Amino acid sequence: MPPLLLFLSLLSLLLPHASSLDYCVADLSLPPTPSGFPCKSPSKLTSDDFYFTGLGVAGNTSNIIKAAVTPAFSPQFPAVNGLGLSLARLDVLPGGVIPLHTHPAGNEALVMIQGTLCAGFVDTANNVFLQTLKKGDVMVFPQGLLHFQINSGGIPALAFVTFSSPTPGLQITSIALFGSNFPSKLIEGTTFLSDAEVKRLKGILGGSG
Amino acid sequence: MPPLLLFLSLLSLLLPHASSLDYCVADLSLPPTPSGFPCKSPSKLTSDDFYFTGLGVAGNTSNIIKAAVTPAFSPQFPAVNGLGLSLARLDVLPGGVIPLHTHPAGNEALVMIQGTLCAGFVDTANNVFLQTLKKGDVMVFPQGLLHFQINSGGIPALAFVTFSSPTPGLQITSIALFGSNFPSKLIEGTTFLSDAEVKRLKGILGGSG
Amino acid sequence: MPPLLLFLSLLSLLLPHASSLDYCVADLSLPPTPSGFPCKSPSKLTSDDFYFTGLGVAGNTSNIIKAAVTPAFSPQFPAVNGLGLSLARLDVLPGGVIPLHTHPAGNEALVMIQGTLCAGFVDTANNVFLQTLKKGDVMVFPQGLLHFQINSGGIPALAFVTFSSPTPGLQITSIALFGSNFPSKLIEGTTFLSDAEVKRLKGILGGSG
Amino acid sequence: MPPLLLFLSLLSLLLPHASSLDYCVADLSLPPTPSGFPCKSPSKLTSDDFYFTGLGVAGNTSNIIKAAVTPAFSPQFPAVNGLGLSLARLDVLPGGVIPLHTHPAGNEALVMIQGTLCAGFVDTANNVFLQTLKKGDVMVFPQGLLHFQINSGGIPALAFVTFSSPTPGLQITSIALFGSNFPSKLIEGTTFLSDAEVKRLKGILGGSG
Amino acid sequence: MPPLLLFLSLLSLLLPHASSLDYCVADLSLPPTPSGFPCKSPSKLTSDDFYFTGLGVAGNTSNIIKAAVTPAFSPQFPAVNGLGLSLARLDVLPGGVIPLHTHPAGNEALVMIQGTLCAGFVDTANNVFLQTLKKGDVMVFPQGLLHFQINSGGIPALAFVTFSSPTPGLQITSIALFGSNFPSKLIEGTTFLSDAEVKRLKGILGGSG
Amino acid sequence: MPPLLLFLSLLSLLLPHASSLDYCVADLSLPPTPSGFPCKSPSKLTSDDFYFTGLGVAGNTSNIIKAAVTPAFSPQFPAVNGLGLSLARLDVLPGGVIPLHTHPAGNEALVMIQGTLCAGFVDTANNVFLQTLKKGDVMVFPQGLLHFQINSGGIPALAFVTFSSPTPGLQITSIALFGSNFPSKLIEGTTFLSDAEVKRLKGILGGSG
Repeated sequence: MPPLLLFLSLLSLLLPHASSLDYCVADLSLPPTPSGFPCKSPSKLTSDDFYFTGLGVAGNTSNIIKAAVTPAFSPQFPAVNGLGLSLARLDVLPGGVIPLHTHPAGNEALVMIQGTLCAGFVDTANNVFLQTLKKGDVMVFPQGLLHFQINSGGIPALAFVTFSSPTPGLQITSIALFGSNFPSKLIEGTTFLSDAEVKRLKGILGGSG
Repeated sequence: MPPLLLFLSLLSLLLPHASSLDYCVADLSLPPTPSGFPCKSPSKLTSDDFYFTGLGVAGNTSNIIKAAVTPAFSPQFPAVNGLGLSLARLDVLPGGVIPLHTHPAGNEALVMIQGTLCAGFVDTANNVFLQTLKKGDVMVFPQGLLHFQINSGGIPALAFVTFSSPTPGLQITSIALFGSNFPSKLIEGTTFLSDAEVKRLKGILGGSG
Repeated sequence: MPPLLLFLSLLSLLLPHASSLDYCVADLSLPPTPSGFPCKSPSKLTSDDFYFTGLGVAGNTSNIIKAAVTPAFSPQFPAVNGLGLSLARLDVLPGGVIPLHTHPAGNEALVMIQGTLCAGFVDTANNVFLQTLKKGDVMVFPQGLLHFQINSGGIPALAFVTFSSPTPGLQITSIALFGSNFPSKLIEGTTFLSDAEVKRLKGILGGSG
Repeated sequence: MPPLLLFLSLLSLLLPHASSLDYCVADLSLPPTPSGFPCKSPSKLTSDDFYFTGLGVAGNTSNIIKAAVTPAFSPQFPAVNGLGLSLARLDVLPGGVIPLHTHPAGNEALVMIQGTLCAGFVDTANNVFLQTLKKGDVMVFPQGLLHFQINSGGIPALAFVTFSSPTPGLQITSIALFGSNFPSKLIEGTTFLSDAEVKRLKGILGGSG
Repeated sequence: MPPLLLFLSLLSLLLPHASSLDYCVADLSLPPTPSGFPCKSPSKLTSDDFYFTGLGVAGNTSNIIKAAVTPAFSPQFPAVNGLGLSLARLDVLPGGVIPLHTHPAGNEALVMIQGTLCAGFVDTANNVFLQTLKKGDVMVFPQGLLHFQINSGGIPALAFVTFSSPTPGLQITSIALFGSNFPSKLIEGTTFLSDAEVKRLKGILGGSG
Repeated sequence: MPPLLLFLSLLSLLLPHASSLDYCVADLSLPPTPSGFPCKSPSKLTSDDFYFTGLGVAGNTSNIIKAAVTPAFSPQFPAVNGLGLSLARLDVLPGGVIPLHTHPAGNEALVMIQGTLCAGFVDTANNVFLQTLKKGDVMVFPQGLLHFQINSGGIPALAFVTFSSPTPGLQITSIALFGSNFPSKLIEGTTFLSDAEVKRLKGILGGSG
């Protein structure tokens, strides 16, 4: 069977090289670049590298917001590096809330699995889009726009969200302002909030300055 | 309060323009471009435009594969146009299968909601990556690579999949070959399948030629 | 000189076609796409289409913020369509402020021309980066992150800003919340602000709901 | 066989929609966008739309440069629209030349089919890279850099070039300067060429001003 | 001539830095990233780095398919790294075939140099596009779609193909299925092929499992 | 206050990871990639990393062109790495000139700060677009097209330019030809310039060959 052997040796020469950028599982030990992390060597990968169990359990909701966001971004799930997508799990107890936030670098789609969320976003023309989401419903939240989710039902809510980037980022407005060392005077001058309110919220959320 | 009025009129001039490309809900009545469909006028949009209920019910699985793929791509859910993402719902009865296929223009991540799927893909170096997926598990399938999902459990399986493109495409290998008018002789010459097998499958899947 | 004529006729056939996407000056009368507006016909363009005088005069700063943002985005300056950049002019009187805001779809660089601005941004790890900017200084503000500018000097400040998108968008946090019809109860639940403070700011900034 | 019919009807619902952006053959009757031309309706396409015979014959080389460039860009071969590539054919008689030029919007690779070309480019650090190309040789010319090809052999040279854009553009330096209405005084001031030389070349290449 | 010296020293400061990303010849000794390999130092490059002779000779066609694919992707020709293009040479003896395959990450254009190929692709709506290609003809094959080439003439066929990516990948369907360790039972379940046919082809193409 | 502590610990787990690609300040000690330089560790950054004073002083204009270009590209201002933008300062004395040049990898917008410039570009259809720019005027120069600026006024001109790339490159046509080792014979053959003129300019601009 020499012809076959020649054919297969051709392929063994060709294909290993060609495959090297089918995917780019992140090597988190190396510094990232603007396009993401360098790739782990394909020879070290197994099917477990493309598989993630971290979204299978509810996040810890024993906190002030009665909610948890569990991300599967590049740092948690290196297989999404370079793939232009990532996921997260939202767990929100009755009365819980995912506070007003943005994703600076990614569009979002949410699919409801259990319970009810009231969700909304504000666009740059100050239009407010609100929706009550039930099991199986989908809603999109365009990149960088302020949005939120609140459990408006009587049972714990579960949703999965997906992003158009492996590292969409998450900036919770009240934490960025009142849980950081952003000087109170600058917050007040740039938001019109009162000094008393800024100090009250810094007390709750741990900010200084 | 004239100063405030001036400030607001400034904003009313500035923001409507700036907002026009926060998002680009597809106007499906116009021809698409390489970047997607033209945008519907922002003035005609309501919160329902960003909301989709079509994934809330199981697809019809009374078919030969005991499975259904329900897409939320741009044509079904115009809000994903231009957002670099889309979704679909997979319903697979026990013993059912999503046949071997590729998405020519998008990476995929799957999150299991109910039941068990055996899933796998083959890369261009002919490595096969297989995984059994249970509730909450996530698996990625890189763009353009052959992959499949089989219900290997005893109850109906439900999964949501997300793509890195609003129009990832779907090419089911056996349908492309045996459910089209691809001439049998060319199929045989380019796949090494026997004439008898090609004709048997065309009989089942409806192909001609 | 027939050879030359043939050469030139070759070029006249070749080059007009090749030139059609050197640039894509926006035809604002047509609906935009995810990549921007359709292009005006090259045959209708003159050098004035690539030229913009709208940043030459100070914006109207007789308002509550003692400041003005004058954009040169695609809707104002159609030549930037498709070029991956845009500009704006900032005028800030002593004591004036560009309130806390984000650009959902573009990175920003600011260059000081006159006066002094105190500027800063908060990243998604809640690090606050502050800087006092004087004539000739440059500062960057990465996409989607909360930032602001305050005139901390004694004379009017002038700066030009540039963006990595022809339509970067602008979302002023306090206007999005307190100048829109975002229901007060939802604002309070998702920001931890008090009902009194939300209502006070809606009174000032014109919001309802 | 009802199950099969259901399966096929499922596919007939799913696939026509999904296919609409497998490709985007240009509809040249509509205005282009920054991402290219709008797409012709898939229902009107035949295999001839993906096929081009225009590179099969030599261009007319009876001209001053003894050479011809025959493009297969979007305007000539609409199927490359949106595909991120295009081609051209180079015919160069002995002693002929493709004058110094750039492609403003695309990288280039050249593969020699017949004869010999001396080719070169200059990078932005003023390094000059020269090569003599024979049958089967490949050379790349990075985007926007000045480059040229000269037939340095005794027989007509034939090469195919490929670009990383469907509309790479072509700017021949001497034609841009001396074959246009670029005012001679401005040419002289910005290139250090003498008035006599500029006027001599405008005489040959047809420029005015 | 001090003014000139000053001018030149200005340039020597400015240009070496500016040039560093004119191109990015791959340093294959470093791990790649999602955007490609890191760049070799510009100071180590000569014109040979932009030049490739590997497509000048026919690949070895003494094999079962009577054909050879010789790639000039990043691993073989590091200069294409980062340029958004690559090439390959196809040699197909009479009766030979490039089996049914996809390129997961790149569009393709083929230009015929010698002989005759029958080529075709199937889109995601199961339309089959077939064409007989003769010297000088061009055909495009959109990303990720199944396609093939068969020598339908009496002499060896030679074609050059170009891709819209430096690493387009190559997945030959029958090798991915029958030349890998893809379990036969899973192949059968996801393609509807018979157990006998799968085992026959694994025998020929070397697969296991 | 345990609930709050839990909430904050959740955030401390989540946010540091999520923030790692808010920005990517270049680590210039590592080799760049096609998407730019690897990122410095976020933990080492201070507000000074996002701040640049190098455009605050005029470049040295005591040279043959009576002009200076001071860049703030990635090598000078590492914060622009990955942000899709960069800046430069132009200083042009009366009678001075920024010679005819291109930016191979970036679109440009210029904003006049002081004085008067006559600026222009030539497109690939040989159309010439000229404009006289005064304080506050903006003009765009599309990627890769030949353009220039001349001080046509009586006072020093100052302008800031911005690019759609952190490394747009700069190729001054006359320096590329007459200040390099580009062989005179090849210049003459590919530009139609006379031998005498080429040698005269090489004498002035320092070229050899």
